[in-house]
Amino acid sequence: MNPDFPSDHPRNIIPELCRLYYSQGWMPGSGGSLSIKYGQEVYITPSGVQKERIQPEDLFVQTVDGEDISVPQTTKGLRKSQCSPVFLNIYRLKAPGAVFHLHSKSAVLATLLTKENTVHLSNLQMIKGIRKWSTGGYHKFTDDVVIPVIDNTHTEDGLIDGMVKAMNDYPDTCIVLVRGHGIYAWGQTWEQAKLVCESYDYLFDVMLQVQAAGVREVHGGVLDSGGST
Amino acid sequence: MNPDFPSDHPRNIIPELCRLYYSQGWMPGSGGSLSIKYGQEVYITPSGVQKERIQPEDLFVQTVDGEDISVPQTTKGLRKSQCSPVFLNIYRLKAPGAVFHLHSKSAVLATLLTKENTVHLSNLQMIKGIRKWSTGGYHKFTDDVVIPVIDNTHTEDGLIDGMVKAMNDYPDTCIVLVRGHGIYAWGQTWEQAKLVCESYDYLFDVMLQVQAAGVREVHGGVLDSGGST
Amino acid sequence: MNPDFPSDHPRNIIPELCRLYYSQGWMPGSGGSLSIKYGQEVYITPSGVQKERIQPEDLFVQTVDGEDISVPQTTKGLRKSQCSPVFLNIYRLKAPGAVFHLHSKSAVLATLLTKENTVHLSNLQMIKGIRKWSTGGYHKFTDDVVIPVIDNTHTEDGLIDGMVKAMNDYPDTCIVLVRGHGIYAWGQTWEQAKLVCESYDYLFDVMLQVQAAGVREVHGGVLDSGGST
Amino acid sequence: MNPDFPSDHPRNIIPELCRLYYSQGWMPGSGGSLSIKYGQEVYITPSGVQKERIQPEDLFVQTVDGEDISVPQTTKGLRKSQCSPVFLNIYRLKAPGAVFHLHSKSAVLATLLTKENTVHLSNLQMIKGIRKWSTGGYHKFTDDVVIPVIDNTHTEDGLIDGMVKAMNDYPDTCIVLVRGHGIYAWGQTWEQAKLVCESYDYLFDVMLQVQAAGVREVHGGVLDSGGST
Repeated sequence: MNPDFPSDHPRNIIPELCRLYYSQGWMPGSGGSLSIKYGQEVYITPSGVQKERIQPEDLFVQTVDGEDISVPQTTKGLRKSQCSPVFLNIYRLKAPGAVFHLHSKSAVLATLLTKENTVHLSNLQMIKGIRKWSTGGYHKFTDDVVIPVIDNTHTEDGLIDGMVKAMNDYPDTCIVLVRGHGIYAWGQTWEQAKLVCESYDYLFDVMLQVQAAGVREVHGGVLDSGGST
Repeated sequence: MNPDFPSDHPRNIIPELCRLYYSQGWMPGSGGSLSIKYGQEVYITPSGVQKERIQPEDLFVQTVDGEDISVPQTTKGLRKSQCSPVFLNIYRLKAPGAVFHLHSKSAVLATLLTKENTVHLSNLQMIKGIRKWSTGGYHKFTDDVVIPVIDNTHTEDGLIDGMVKAMNDYPDTCIVLVRGHGIYAWGQTWEQAKLVCESYDYLFDVMLQVQAAGVREVHGGVLDSGGST
Repeated sequence: MNPDFPSDHPRNIIPELCRLYYSQGWMPGSGGSLSIKYGQEVYITPSGVQKERIQPEDLFVQTVDGEDISVPQTTKGLRKSQCSPVFLNIYRLKAPGAVFHLHSKSAVLATLLTKENTVHLSNLQMIKGIRKWSTGGYHKFTDDVVIPVIDNTHTEDGLIDGMVKAMNDYPDTCIVLVRGHGIYAWGQTWEQAKLVCESYDYLFDVMLQVQAAGVREVHGGVLDSGGST
Repeated sequence: MNPDFPSDHPRNIIPELCRLYYSQGWMPGSGGSLSIKYGQEVYITPSGVQKERIQPEDLFVQTVDGEDISVPQTTKGLRKSQCSPVFLNIYRLKAPGAVFHLHSKSAVLATLLTKENTVHLSNLQMIKGIRKWSTGGYHKFTDDVVIPVIDNTHTEDGLIDGMVKAMNDYPDTCIVLVRGHGIYAWGQTWEQAKLVCESYDYLFDVMLQVQAAGVREVHGGVLDSGGST
């Protein structure tokens, strides 16, 4: 922790969460990226580096319109995250307090085991912790929660069109899955974004293990990725 | 650890166990809740917060009848656990020293892979560590241990009726499974409740892996969730 | 670490290994037990306690013939491990420097997925790290390594007869599996016993995953538990 | 960390990575070995010891031609890694900055579930982080990435011929799989070698889980180990 900043400042929270998510396997290699909005400043991890070793001074700071407020010392040789335009687009459209991009294995597997553009979840208590983004309120555990899946593209900013469409089609979602790639997830605060990521990772893993056991109907509910092969 | 309290005081033990259970995946998102009885005081974790960040001063303290003895500073904005009425009901009926509610994945999977209201375990050594609550003594490893499963409800306190029935029907159990949700488990002490949770998580995981391998009869014993689909 | 003892003294090594093995899931609940011989003294963990919280002063010290050399302070209320007679029997028959009893899940699963009294391993590099106990030297990776499995009994000391027979029938083994229960493993030193436990846990897990994928013959070798159902 | 050396010196980095890789299950028993080139010096872990306990002063230092520059104190009784000739051969042929040998379970499983001498990966974002060694540049996520598999041999240096052939046949690879054994992987720097190991471990695990679910064609791409049985 850098004592020059409050303990809940993005310069302290982002490196801490990077170490946590690396240890959980969500940021392998140099994969994944985190951003937190603090006032009018968006703090974003640099690209192509070991996320678990990021220091408070390594973050890029931008406005939601993509203007630089602050960059790391050039001697560090750090580059802006390729996720930056995707993050900023979500900040502009959804006004969240944090947007995370993670390579959660269970999310990636959920996208690979279906050819559809949605994954469904139901009859699981952890659904209840997830807020409906646009209409507000929380899901019932019996709800049919629908999560959009978009196809991967060769560049991160190529994802924006698909993501905008997914957010329009599913206004209550706070997560978009990218096939074979990972998740983009957001929350009103970094705590909420963290809760969303942990809850969905857990939910996808349970869903996949239930499917692997050959059970597709659970007590009349839908616990299935749409049209899985 | 807060040095104002003994090392085994609930204000020290509960935050420590929350960090442990978060790292084991039993308290993802803001899921799960812990309670320990200390004299006539029941210490309970707050609701809807990251459990691994709970501090000694964040706990609610109540009598077993639900009267407040002490609450966190209002500036912290913490809310009572929705599990509180379920916990207190178990304290009144069973007089344990600790009651834990956890989202153990193997327990949740065990409830999803059967339509019955029980899960059976047998021929596993870890059964022997689990005390029969009412009649006393310990199980033999060859016993047919029957664990009640109740259906989930839209509110935590909605679980109480099902849980009372399960405890009446299976007086020796120290754990009740809630379908698609998690476990409620208790012990004479927090150490015993911890042992029960770890033992069952291990047992359910072994059971599920044996089932996944297609083996349902193991040396003449029952190693199967009742009427699994 | 207790600075009154050298860093490699059993009073320091055993608590450290207990914390490690707890974190690896090999000592859930209060399961498993460790022993190390130091000169003529055998140090053994106490029974029925959380192994990851054991302190240097909590160990029982006995001769290989079972006479007490030192016991924990009675105020601690600790009991001798039920594994003690099994451990001492192995010390007398095999003269190892350490004997460990662990509830490794992959070992337990390996015993549950066969009705035979042996598990076979071959064509895996990790076999090479394991010393042949009686005839000396190390295995080739192409060897057919045969690991004895004995049936569980209601008391730990009931295991002794089966274990003696297994050790006689398979003089080169440094591990005996107990069905639905766990492993007893030994080494010339605690480092060797640790290596044996880690290697076999890894090997059983690989074997089970290969079996789960439906592959039973791997490049002409035997990678199969004998007569699995 | 040994303060006599810079924090990024091999004498500090190698022990740190050994502890990390042990905790990830890639260095069980005494398995695996790491090397980093620092100027003209190649630092290599010793053989047959617990890798997570290696100290800065325990490393062997050699030229790429195998001449000793520095060895640990003889009182420590350490032996050179059997991987040394394999490492040095890769340093001479590929001129990397680091070569790691790890027993990654998902890599070992990938080699056991095919009889072919290649594993294929495609349609996964993590492919993009891996540099093409000879022709330069990075893979597209839609590329058909081909990873060579060589058969195991009774000694580590027996692997050299197969590895040379694999490197000639697949000049862009920065990893060679050894059947039933593990990986050899390299990078321009230790950070790159680490990225390669983490990325492939993740990729093989995803590939195996997709295969286990019975899906072999994912959106027209190849996500399959060549001629798996």
